[in-house]
Amino acid sequence: MTLTASFAAQSATSPLGPHQITRRSVGAKDVQIEIEFCGVCHTDLHFSKNDWGMSNYPVIPGHEIVGKISALGAEVTHLKIGQRVAVGCFVNSCHVCSSCEADMEQYCLSGFTTTYNSPTQDPGNFTYGGYSKRIVVDKHFVLTMPDGLDPAAAAPLLCAGITTYSPLKHWGIKAGMTVGVIGLGGLGHMAIKLSHAMGAKTVMITTSESKVHDAKRLGADDVLISTDPVAMKKMLNQFDFIINTIPVPHDYNPYMWLLKVEGTMCIVGAVGPNAALNTQALVFGRRKIAGSLVGGIAETQEMLEFCAKHHIVSDIELIKIQDINQAYERMIKSDVKYRFVIDMASLPE
Amino acid sequence: MTLTASFAAQSATSPLGPHQITRRSVGAKDVQIEIEFCGVCHTDLHFSKNDWGMSNYPVIPGHEIVGKISALGAEVTHLKIGQRVAVGCFVNSCHVCSSCEADMEQYCLSGFTTTYNSPTQDPGNFTYGGYSKRIVVDKHFVLTMPDGLDPAAAAPLLCAGITTYSPLKHWGIKAGMTVGVIGLGGLGHMAIKLSHAMGAKTVMITTSESKVHDAKRLGADDVLISTDPVAMKKMLNQFDFIINTIPVPHDYNPYMWLLKVEGTMCIVGAVGPNAALNTQALVFGRRKIAGSLVGGIAETQEMLEFCAKHHIVSDIELIKIQDINQAYERMIKSDVKYRFVIDMASLPE
Repeated sequence: MTLTASFAAQSATSPLGPHQITRRSVGAKDVQIEIEFCGVCHTDLHFSKNDWGMSNYPVIPGHEIVGKISALGAEVTHLKIGQRVAVGCFVNSCHVCSSCEADMEQYCLSGFTTTYNSPTQDPGNFTYGGYSKRIVVDKHFVLTMPDGLDPAAAAPLLCAGITTYSPLKHWGIKAGMTVGVIGLGGLGHMAIKLSHAMGAKTVMITTSESKVHDAKRLGADDVLISTDPVAMKKMLNQFDFIINTIPVPHDYNPYMWLLKVEGTMCIVGAVGPNAALNTQALVFGRRKIAGSLVGGIAETQEMLEFCAKHHIVSDIELIKIQDINQAYERMIKSDVKYRFVIDMASLPE
Repeated sequence: MTLTASFAAQSATSPLGPHQITRRSVGAKDVQIEIEFCGVCHTDLHFSKNDWGMSNYPVIPGHEIVGKISALGAEVTHLKIGQRVAVGCFVNSCHVCSSCEADMEQYCLSGFTTTYNSPTQDPGNFTYGGYSKRIVVDKHFVLTMPDGLDPAAAAPLLCAGITTYSPLKHWGIKAGMTVGVIGLGGLGHMAIKLSHAMGAKTVMITTSESKVHDAKRLGADDVLISTDPVAMKKMLNQFDFIINTIPVPHDYNPYMWLLKVEGTMCIVGAVGPNAALNTQALVFGRRKIAGSLVGGIAETQEMLEFCAKHHIVSDIELIKIQDINQAYERMIKSDVKYRFVIDMASLPE
């Protein structure tokens, strides 16, 4: 089938202009999905604008995909036509490395295939993401949507949700623990909801008093204003785990002292060169800095079930595809609470 | 009793000149030790020269202490006069915080009392270390020396030994794992011996070809020259654990990619401001950077038993106290294989 990647953001930045994109035909192990909703991640913005110098135009962004199955390959027996499913940040991996064997496809040693802008097995072709009418995906990478989750508000679970769920789960967050969430955006607001649902005392850590009300509404038990030295001093050695969602380089050293002995701060936002590390907090407390990337397929399915059970979805603003450039502009100003989701019915066939 | 802190290094750098030092009398829970040997740690050099701006002169350095008991308090029943014992980097802690209760006195939340240059409970007084004839220490902080360990060569186990043993033990190093050791000095040479004895494949990681022979003699299965890009590329994703003993700020980012998914690099040398951290290796592999500080008292005792069982001591150069300044100068040039130990018989009464 042929799709026209004519939405404004992509064609505006593409040297090729509007472009004919061909989806692959439905193979024996494939699932074809009619996309209903697609979340708008900051990564989409970066790829649209080639901020990282690695965009292969035409780019069709989108890796927070929810839709209904319209066709199935012969070998796909566990899914049904019309069933609501989801696709996240990647659509293939090697299946045989130690990471894939351990259900951690996100750390595939051969590198996974991202949902968009990744080379496909046919040389010269690239994957195209969820700002589309439909997508064809290998059955292993298709999640089933549990009943009871609003499909539009659930779309961001596929990236923002799993990116925060995976580290919280990996570090065993539960009742009796104190978890800090740094940064209140798409990731941060999910981290608060999930940490709260896991039973931990959840503290929003922010520079801004203006976020106190919203953080508490989302489930934070407390808010720590990081620019207040007295408040910061009070919270030294108090956190079992801190999830750091700040998306830009920043000085994370002051936060390290908030961790208990043996505590971990996990970075999920600022990927790349960051501030100088002062190792004192690490050495004088066996503290750790870690990173985490989305989650494996089995874990993503588990996260969706967890969210259904706890009635967790993202706080979203539903937009039409025609409004995507304006949405990008608002995202740059952090003017979104907390995720844009595109209603794909707005995209002309 | 009165000791003359007249050794050259201290009096040369002290604004007070030679000084009369009074050790405390032997309390009910105390052990008095006649010091036979004291290892020379880089920290001693820093405190002698006030490199960190926190020296309280007169300083008597030394926290790698081996000697024999000469007096016991009434409440000390598990030790005997004449028994060979040891003292490491600290001589008191709060005993009641969560760290102390978990036998991790090194992370005491009230701050432990270091073996030298720490304020004592008597205001205005400071602890004095092992470059002395004798020392009085609370029984909880006195280790017993297992038979079969050469007392001079065992002295550095009390700092260099436990500093490397503790993280190797904490991260569960065992046969089937691959451990990297960065830096071949006092700490690094102990890390190689201990990791090898724990059964791990142990790889020395160094910039210098000149260290290959010695690293292998000490127990390294292999040596990775970190300035060789081809060799480094071959070892990407190969290490379960890396212990980083480099004592000065440096770029640790290239080493992070040597870790397997979920691997940890533990910093035990460079404490303080260090290089900018690139978080990519952390995020794309759930890798971690951690720190570690010496070890708890129970763990230090366990380390001594482990070393006795595996016939592990430090490679040392035995010196007289009169040679300490020359030893410091050689340490600055890394001209020691691998630890100076002072024969305390050379110190005049």
